[in-house]
Amino acid sequence: MKSVKTKKERVVLDTSLFVNPDVRNDFGDSPTEAINGFLALAEKIPELEFYMPSSIFNELMNFVDQSKVPGRFMAILRQKSPGKHEMTCPAFFLYELIDEMRDRTNKGLRIAEKAVRNANGGSEREVIQSMRKQYRVALREGILDSKEDVDLILLAKELDALLVTVDNGAIIWADKLGVRWLLPSKFKDYLLSFIDEDGEEQRISNIE
Amino acid sequence: MKSVKTKKERVVLDTSLFVNPDVRNDFGDSPTEAINGFLALAEKIPELEFYMPSSIFNELMNFVDQSKVPGRFMAILRQKSPGKHEMTCPAFFLYELIDEMRDRTNKGLRIAEKAVRNANGGSEREVIQSMRKQYRVALREGILDSKEDVDLILLAKELDALLVTVDNGAIIWADKLGVRWLLPSKFKDYLLSFIDEDGEEQRISNIE
Repeated sequence: MKSVKTKKERVVLDTSLFVNPDVRNDFGDSPTEAINGFLALAEKIPELEFYMPSSIFNELMNFVDQSKVPGRFMAILRQKSPGKHEMTCPAFFLYELIDEMRDRTNKGLRIAEKAVRNANGGSEREVIQSMRKQYRVALREGILDSKEDVDLILLAKELDALLVTVDNGAIIWADKLGVRWLLPSKFKDYLLSFIDEDGEEQRISNIE
Repeated sequence: MKSVKTKKERVVLDTSLFVNPDVRNDFGDSPTEAINGFLALAEKIPELEFYMPSSIFNELMNFVDQSKVPGRFMAILRQKSPGKHEMTCPAFFLYELIDEMRDRTNKGLRIAEKAVRNANGGSEREVIQSMRKQYRVALREGILDSKEDVDLILLAKELDALLVTVDNGAIIWADKLGVRWLLPSKFKDYLLSFIDEDGEEQRISNIE
């Protein structure tokens, strides 16, 4: 017996699923193929609603051959920004962010000082390249470092959605907000769990 | 005729009022004297309630001779942290903060790169000192850069209070939250405006 009304599970996707070669391969060999691979599965699962922040969607379109992206993709993957003028975040989030940025800013200065001290030891170019790498790790990895990251976690919060991203910063801060998340490497299996072995959609519905 | 009930105006104070020599002199020649100078005026103004975040108060106590701070100071200047687990901040605030930190982080890297390139031109020590100064300006000035800054602006928000601070970062971000603020250089005049020429408290009350 089918349920009268089904509560849809919502999923917010990052570009990494289609763009990052380490995780994209589950769906296709190029971003455009990955989109089509995802679409073939997603169309079979009416229980799920897929979303992507508009800012992230614009990024994604830079990676694909737009003439080969079917119009159906726009219908299946809804583009939506979070309601940033209505939404709020808990104040403790601000404390943690400021505190972490302060630590990282201090680390960045130590890295720069070390590079200046090493400037005579190696080639200037190598010293600068090595410093850039360390600096980026210290100041960017594992923290919210762009508006797009904020879009991702706030949209997932707003929609009470599952966030699928490989971005460690977005995961850590989504987790602090109580947002559920999934690594893209598990995403294909997640989708397949909604489809039975005969390729038929499963009727395990969450009744509202 | 006196009003039956007076709505108290609330004021949140930063340490700068007592500690920073540029603004402290209106009240006294040392932090301890400035506290007593402030107290002499504040006691004459029952219309105002004064607050300081606990974290900031602890900082202030490091600058004073605690044996010379009258107990009355603790009663007049209420110590209170903002309700950081109940309060929220608008989501757009998060966007602006992340965006600004990203710009500043990039600037910090440019400063570090320049210092590495200059390392052969001047003494290592001078290059590092100059870099530290520029880096701190780029990454810290005019932005919320400590938990204490967040305490200041959230407490003022929570209490709908006037924020008195010389910290440019706290002022800019308080302003974004709709918090009123006043530079400490105007604070003595502000206080005196509540006291008439004969030293008597004025009875211009805000009736609720």
